[in-house]
Amino acid sequence: MNNRLFFSTKINEEFASVLSKESEEIGFYHLPDADTSEYKSYAKNVKQKDIVVVGIGGSALGTLAIYHFLGLGQSFEKNLHFIDTTDPLVLKQKVEQIDLDDALIIVVSKSGATVETIAALKYLQSFVPICKENYAVITDPSSDLEKFAASYGIKVFNMPANVGGRFSVLSAVGLVPLAIIGVDIDALLEGARGVKDSFFNNHGYCEKLLTKATYYAQVSNAYNINCLFSYSEAFREFNAWYVQLWGESLGKQQRNSQLHVGLTPVGLIGPTDQHSFLQLIVDGKRDKTVTVIKIKDFENSIKIPDITLPALEKLDILNGYGFEELINMQADAMIESLESLEFIPLDVIEVDKVNEQTIGELIYYYELLTALVAQMLDINAYDQPGVEMGKIILKEKMRKK
Amino acid sequence: MNNRLFFSTKINEEFASVLSKESEEIGFYHLPDADTSEYKSYAKNVKQKDIVVVGIGGSALGTLAIYHFLGLGQSFEKNLHFIDTTDPLVLKQKVEQIDLDDALIIVVSKSGATVETIAALKYLQSFVPICKENYAVITDPSSDLEKFAASYGIKVFNMPANVGGRFSVLSAVGLVPLAIIGVDIDALLEGARGVKDSFFNNHGYCEKLLTKATYYAQVSNAYNINCLFSYSEAFREFNAWYVQLWGESLGKQQRNSQLHVGLTPVGLIGPTDQHSFLQLIVDGKRDKTVTVIKIKDFENSIKIPDITLPALEKLDILNGYGFEELINMQADAMIESLESLEFIPLDVIEVDKVNEQTIGELIYYYELLTALVAQMLDINAYDQPGVEMGKIILKEKMRKK
Repeated sequence: MNNRLFFSTKINEEFASVLSKESEEIGFYHLPDADTSEYKSYAKNVKQKDIVVVGIGGSALGTLAIYHFLGLGQSFEKNLHFIDTTDPLVLKQKVEQIDLDDALIIVVSKSGATVETIAALKYLQSFVPICKENYAVITDPSSDLEKFAASYGIKVFNMPANVGGRFSVLSAVGLVPLAIIGVDIDALLEGARGVKDSFFNNHGYCEKLLTKATYYAQVSNAYNINCLFSYSEAFREFNAWYVQLWGESLGKQQRNSQLHVGLTPVGLIGPTDQHSFLQLIVDGKRDKTVTVIKIKDFENSIKIPDITLPALEKLDILNGYGFEELINMQADAMIESLESLEFIPLDVIEVDKVNEQTIGELIYYYELLTALVAQMLDINAYDQPGVEMGKIILKEKMRKK
Repeated sequence: MNNRLFFSTKINEEFASVLSKESEEIGFYHLPDADTSEYKSYAKNVKQKDIVVVGIGGSALGTLAIYHFLGLGQSFEKNLHFIDTTDPLVLKQKVEQIDLDDALIIVVSKSGATVETIAALKYLQSFVPICKENYAVITDPSSDLEKFAASYGIKVFNMPANVGGRFSVLSAVGLVPLAIIGVDIDALLEGARGVKDSFFNNHGYCEKLLTKATYYAQVSNAYNINCLFSYSEAFREFNAWYVQLWGESLGKQQRNSQLHVGLTPVGLIGPTDQHSFLQLIVDGKRDKTVTVIKIKDFENSIKIPDITLPALEKLDILNGYGFEELINMQADAMIESLESLEFIPLDVIEVDKVNEQTIGELIYYYELLTALVAQMLDINAYDQPGVEMGKIILKEKMRKK
């Protein structure tokens, strides 16, 4: 992975050591070093073909991001399904796609009491009876969901209590379901570990990440929107994971002043969104930073045939190109055109290939960047006090009705 | 459809008449009044089972929005596929899902020379030979693509020259493929016509739309982000359509001052994004307006069983609710919690059901709102000069290599 910044600023290297010092308290730092043998031995013994993750938000988005990224280029040993909504239209459709006689249901909830997840569990148990063969649970130690599992002898994986939902993909939350379908979870952690070691040992990623975080915080008042323009459909769910990580971590009241601050994430896919959002970036208000993600080597590629279509001779310039060349030329053309404009802070991330290691790198890079920006803005990246009120109102509504 | 605004401002009713006067020049106004008999009679004679739209941006997003919205609640007579990318990973996968021996390819490009579309056409013709039985074309009158079609005797539908791509879904662009798979396109236009007549005759929608557009323009400097929080997966592709319409129409330089202005659209899906973006709305910088879309009657619903799970007794409050009640209570709880906060401009759109008429209403409502906001900001909603530079650089790159 390679990150090229088109902007610069003076960085305070003490920030890296601040993070390093508090690193015992913040759990996600250490996830790449975890022992995965328990996950792998459990995974090896799963007999079912259809694996169903029941979870919402941080309990599903990261796993889905990795599954979708890897899944465009290869097929897996088993099917993975996600039940992550209360929408009746889609819930019914999703359950119909599962082979209910050959399914392992993995219920994922940090608190163990997520309304959507327990509602879906109650619905699913009428199709897949609750017993230790059919279910597994991933939750915080001592949650109600853990007690529920214990009463049936259902296998429980705990997530570290000091790892928040949106930072949990490299814990049991992501690793257990991914190991079951055959993803190389050690390669995933190896990728993450590379970025971690580089950062905490003050190597390459340290300067890049500190520069980017410092700059984003410095200009956050004028540039309150951060666009991630990813040049492959493989990143579609990664973008959604990024939106949660960034938005929910960085939309906060400042610790002392209680000022509302926040950076708004926007996930875009190229070249599709060149025909949608790009006009707004180029000619709209100068309130957006742009990060372009590219894939260096698509491997499995297809070519544009060398043929001439009547009246369309002008487009013979396309002939003979691989589609992977075309999409990367489109990315480069966009990068050049943005580079030539003033006041659009730009950087480019190039990942080598579509594999476990590269997505592990990218995930850890973004987790660190998020943590650093939060430090610079003097906010807590790891809580989400703003969503509690809605939950309380919902429970009142349910009791009343 | 019902729209409730939680903010108000003084409106200038002359704006409605300004739009009304120029209404001969701007094509999308009149699309709901078009005669659809040509589309319907063509559709009736299509024998193929797999219909493939080859197009990108405005040539695909609106059609996909309607197809996805209606498709969660019903099944269609035929399959609809979209080839809307140059991504080699997904292009290959998409083509594999088509029954190539039983496919009608509809090539959609306003200019007739869209790079992605012609690249995909060249790729597809090696699987589905070009002839008048296998292909149809939707394009501007006299485009190169029309000439290409003429040389094979391929059926051509023109889009009105004064209708831009992102405003074209209610023209042949959307109506032809949708009619073929069995969508009631007259009901779609009827929904749109209801909003149109209400607006141009100065009835209910006129005041709502003018108030909303005026307010958005007045506060656009501080509130540069507009969130559309849609409470059903049915709206996922509608959100993507909205993002293009809003971003590409409203990200411009002002006519006289050349100041860069623009409003940034964000599409969210409830309840999923309550676990993602909501924290940013509630506690983050006060730079976002929020529109919530709800479905009043989901019809086809499923219930949460009335059972108690050991250790999870607290969540028995869910028991017996329909999932459609739960999702709407979640939406209402979020609306109440946002209503109680200061400085978050909020409105709620409630559509009656999932059907052709309601999506027609919603589409026309958003097209009018976009046109009005552009008037207020003194920008041209209908061009996209900012994306030309990237296209020129791309063509240079292709010639050089």
